[in-house]
Amino acid sequence: MSGIVVQNVARAAAEVIADLEACGVSTVHEAQERTGLLASYMRPIYSGARIAGSAVTISAPPGDNWMVHVAIEQLQAGDILVIAPTSPCEDGYFGDLLATSAQARGCKGLIINAGVRDVRDLKEMDFPVWSKAVFAQGTIKASLGSVNVPVICAGAAINAGDVIVADDDGVVVVPRAEAEAVARKAKEREANEAAKRARLANGELGLDIYQMREKLADMGLRYV
Amino acid sequence: MSGIVVQNVARAAAEVIADLEACGVSTVHEAQERTGLLASYMRPIYSGARIAGSAVTISAPPGDNWMVHVAIEQLQAGDILVIAPTSPCEDGYFGDLLATSAQARGCKGLIINAGVRDVRDLKEMDFPVWSKAVFAQGTIKASLGSVNVPVICAGAAINAGDVIVADDDGVVVVPRAEAEAVARKAKEREANEAAKRARLANGELGLDIYQMREKLADMGLRYV
Amino acid sequence: MSGIVVQNVARAAAEVIADLEACGVSTVHEAQERTGLLASYMRPIYSGARIAGSAVTISAPPGDNWMVHVAIEQLQAGDILVIAPTSPCEDGYFGDLLATSAQARGCKGLIINAGVRDVRDLKEMDFPVWSKAVFAQGTIKASLGSVNVPVICAGAAINAGDVIVADDDGVVVVPRAEAEAVARKAKEREANEAAKRARLANGELGLDIYQMREKLADMGLRYV
Amino acid sequence: MSGIVVQNVARAAAEVIADLEACGVSTVHEAQERTGLLASYMRPIYSGARIAGSAVTISAPPGDNWMVHVAIEQLQAGDILVIAPTSPCEDGYFGDLLATSAQARGCKGLIINAGVRDVRDLKEMDFPVWSKAVFAQGTIKASLGSVNVPVICAGAAINAGDVIVADDDGVVVVPRAEAEAVARKAKEREANEAAKRARLANGELGLDIYQMREKLADMGLRYV
Amino acid sequence: MSGIVVQNVARAAAEVIADLEACGVSTVHEAQERTGLLASYMRPIYSGARIAGSAVTISAPPGDNWMVHVAIEQLQAGDILVIAPTSPCEDGYFGDLLATSAQARGCKGLIINAGVRDVRDLKEMDFPVWSKAVFAQGTIKASLGSVNVPVICAGAAINAGDVIVADDDGVVVVPRAEAEAVARKAKEREANEAAKRARLANGELGLDIYQMREKLADMGLRYV
Amino acid sequence: MSGIVVQNVARAAAEVIADLEACGVSTVHEAQERTGLLASYMRPIYSGARIAGSAVTISAPPGDNWMVHVAIEQLQAGDILVIAPTSPCEDGYFGDLLATSAQARGCKGLIINAGVRDVRDLKEMDFPVWSKAVFAQGTIKASLGSVNVPVICAGAAINAGDVIVADDDGVVVVPRAEAEAVARKAKEREANEAAKRARLANGELGLDIYQMREKLADMGLRYV
Repeated sequence: MSGIVVQNVARAAAEVIADLEACGVSTVHEAQERTGLLASYMRPIYSGARIAGSAVTISAPPGDNWMVHVAIEQLQAGDILVIAPTSPCEDGYFGDLLATSAQARGCKGLIINAGVRDVRDLKEMDFPVWSKAVFAQGTIKASLGSVNVPVICAGAAINAGDVIVADDDGVVVVPRAEAEAVARKAKEREANEAAKRARLANGELGLDIYQMREKLADMGLRYV
Repeated sequence: MSGIVVQNVARAAAEVIADLEACGVSTVHEAQERTGLLASYMRPIYSGARIAGSAVTISAPPGDNWMVHVAIEQLQAGDILVIAPTSPCEDGYFGDLLATSAQARGCKGLIINAGVRDVRDLKEMDFPVWSKAVFAQGTIKASLGSVNVPVICAGAAINAGDVIVADDDGVVVVPRAEAEAVARKAKEREANEAAKRARLANGELGLDIYQMREKLADMGLRYV
Repeated sequence: MSGIVVQNVARAAAEVIADLEACGVSTVHEAQERTGLLASYMRPIYSGARIAGSAVTISAPPGDNWMVHVAIEQLQAGDILVIAPTSPCEDGYFGDLLATSAQARGCKGLIINAGVRDVRDLKEMDFPVWSKAVFAQGTIKASLGSVNVPVICAGAAINAGDVIVADDDGVVVVPRAEAEAVARKAKEREANEAAKRARLANGELGLDIYQMREKLADMGLRYV
Repeated sequence: MSGIVVQNVARAAAEVIADLEACGVSTVHEAQERTGLLASYMRPIYSGARIAGSAVTISAPPGDNWMVHVAIEQLQAGDILVIAPTSPCEDGYFGDLLATSAQARGCKGLIINAGVRDVRDLKEMDFPVWSKAVFAQGTIKASLGSVNVPVICAGAAINAGDVIVADDDGVVVVPRAEAEAVARKAKEREANEAAKRARLANGELGLDIYQMREKLADMGLRYV
Repeated sequence: MSGIVVQNVARAAAEVIADLEACGVSTVHEAQERTGLLASYMRPIYSGARIAGSAVTISAPPGDNWMVHVAIEQLQAGDILVIAPTSPCEDGYFGDLLATSAQARGCKGLIINAGVRDVRDLKEMDFPVWSKAVFAQGTIKASLGSVNVPVICAGAAINAGDVIVADDDGVVVVPRAEAEAVARKAKEREANEAAKRARLANGELGLDIYQMREKLADMGLRYV
Repeated sequence: MSGIVVQNVARAAAEVIADLEACGVSTVHEAQERTGLLASYMRPIYSGARIAGSAVTISAPPGDNWMVHVAIEQLQAGDILVIAPTSPCEDGYFGDLLATSAQARGCKGLIINAGVRDVRDLKEMDFPVWSKAVFAQGTIKASLGSVNVPVICAGAAINAGDVIVADDDGVVVVPRAEAEAVARKAKEREANEAAKRARLANGELGLDIYQMREKLADMGLRYV
């Protein structure tokens, strides 16, 4: 089943992606009914970055980064690379040379369920990465994998063209077909939260704003 | 045993808390005979913060953050929230809205043996958190827990009103009744360390300052 | 076998060490045929540091830091301390006082397969550490270990006088006898990479630069 | 998206399932081109069991086992329950009472990316379980999940009606549509292996049987 | 605070302990409102054992088993040793010689938040152990700890004289003062479960026995 | 540095190996001054086996088991295979076919810092394995490694011809040159322990046998 490169991948509209990026991981995750999160061990190599883009997926053998070269040719401006090894691995598939190449094609960042290296260079290049590990261990180029096939990455199912959102809270995937609806809900949620935030900052309690007191009493909460 | 909110919690004196904060986690830990540390997986979401305050404790069901709203009403200025789920969990119980509410009541930060989210916002708000994970996974509001009951959090027993000290080295709890004595010992320790530091910086060796050479020789240390 | 301090340790030439430091962990690791990396859990306590130096090794009992005092006397300017407990441990063997003493003797940093504390102070002192954990847990001074004996640290064999290189990518050890050859290869590699980087930044693809297309087709890669 | 019970689930033919069971996890995994394995942390609660059956899937909230009762009604003889919490959890969702109920409906076993309890009873009942943990921690019945929806369980995508094979080597999922082809290939593989096993048992070397010597020499293997 | 041996420890009544042993970990855990479980990483060194007894607690330095000798003198027939290191450790504190000594005094088994060794001998002696690790690593006898002081062991608070129950499901602690009430509830629970088990074995569904259908429909569960 | 097969490997005397096997892991570990243990995550795939033999080492690329075939030709009767991947990996390098081949040449078992599969077959064949994982994940045959070179396996340095001892307590390596002396000390230790065991079984306390009471009192132990 490996050895395939899918070339024509539908992508979400740029403004939908921009909206999702503006809302960030936690809000988008809530807006799509708490689905799509990658595992919490996927951490950014430096803090402060927030990106959204269309997934170009790589199913790679453990310790073999050959397919990354193949995938880079498939990148369009604004895309995000997603690398999922076929068995657990923390080798450093990706470093500053591949980042230079990916960035030259407009790639916004990398999500990898394995290791990354040259992190100081990547930070200087402003090329953000969310990974399972930072590890200098080199990889080989011996076996085929596939590009733009469905993958499971850190516990989440990702198809090529799905929208990836990543920031300091982690990584979430939004299925392409649902991206517009999720973006709309996420923006509504943000608007709603702004009002709540103002009231809470003013000292009002969630117990009152959300009218929780009666329900808590009914369930038996006792103040002693 | 859940469903209880303890309202009258004795707290340590403000100047004792200030002294403990000034000394920091490692010194306080030594001053109370190397007890009270939380597990090393409790890490700050950003570096450089150092806080001390009285614990307002939350015993929460896994994946359920309802009691956080209840606990916020119990906060006094200078307190620190401590959330301990009743079984292992890394869901994101706490984000920027709850932090806004807690901060409005004078809360200095959060210790949570689970996940936290909206970490970029929390950093901007200067609301430090020490947690087991950063994870956007949302929680529900379905079951009661308790507030200000004794909890075990990341391996340490914490009672409401105990003093929490947290910085880049981790988190330590000081029982309220011992806080004054511990603060005094911690300050003495600091004073003592300043003198040692000067001698060591000057090139003197610990082997000589602490007169270790003879004892090491007696135990059989050989230079070859 | 413990209780030994080896005093006369051969070290690599200063310019070789400087070359290795300039190349960094990932390049040095590649230059010595992908050997010598310490485990990926060895992380810097703050980002941005890059050091190389001669290893002064410590084989220490778990939770006992007595030998660190003994080792500090053996330090020469430019050395790096390497602490390997004899069974798994994450206690905080090392803090600001020991760092002050080590730095006074010219030590450039610490590699420790255990915990470290006072990390805020260490950062202010510009004394970098790569460790398994940050943990305030104190240690005792009760048992002998050895200094400058061969150790296995985080999965890598390290002899006193071997060259340690550490940066944001992790830690690698270069056997002293191979240091000069490895440094030469690392510099060649760097030079070679600079040319590649320019071509990749210009939009050329690795598929073309490395002439991979034919081989991939031979192996059966299909574009669909 | 939760709160759904899919009732009409197509299942693979009984003889296909029997063939897959006879071949076992490792052979089936190889026969479907090394895909479909669940993570290695999924271990049997007792050794020696080997089962195959059609998946009845449960997407469950963390720490909430209500949907197990709903799923049991959907079981047909020969099915296997698959429980996937929506965030990481090791609570004990399942014990001897649920096993009694499931077994009464012909269920052959349980795959759960969380905890299980009453393992002594389950062993006596001959009801095998592959789980992430053994943990007595109880769960609640407060929130809806879904039954027979697609889930990701321990890193593998599983649809209701897919064939699950589990034994001492772990757990593998075979998509229903491919089950017949995979079973055929697995049986061929078994037949082929029997011949190889006999030659190897007789002292012939894999180097000769698989004609590896020339290729190894070409690649530069040196005997010293 | 270390260096103390508490000699007069109240214990629960023998018949209460026998009742708790008969009910087992999961039932006792439920009977005391889902509290008191030790972490799931505490596993038996062999399956099939079930014990209950009064805790003789040991607070031990990491890698130092001296206090075990002190504790053995405090054992009464039917007691269970509980060893909690003061920082994380997996060294093998306990082997066949200590087990011989403990067993000679009527000790029923060991709970240890660290390592154990000689597990083949322990199995032959029928001396069950629940531990964090099996590890041959030896320990020293250099520092004092305490015996029969309160400890936190694998996340649970344990006082000397509390009742420990351990079986294949793990380990639970019952505070001595609550042991009688918990034993009564546990037995009631067992009786109640027997009736349920019979109905479930007969093919009745939990959905009907527990009258869940209406509530599920109210919450919006849809069958499709 | 890979691509090498060392053919002439000196081995320890058969009776030395037999003595070490009879003493077992924990005793041998003590007899060589508590060195040589592999990490505690190396667990047997079934309990009850105890073996000792000369190491035939394999340094293998992650996920590539080609060198196992090369190594099997180097096996002599009584040897033990030791597989150490060059970066962390839990793939199943080894199953029943390779075990058949190895056993045909007299191999007593396998130590692997990665995964193993076909564990039911291996148990039936009485071919014991100590591994990091049980995992059906297949491997490839694409890259060279080396045979009988020094490796680091699960934290221990192992040279070809060193004596491996493995049982339910884990795995220990004894350097060939020290094997005879270690075996002698281990046997003395065993003899000594037999006498101690008898006294302890008779109810004497370690406190008295080892004359610990005075020293404990001197250090300040207080009975309260």
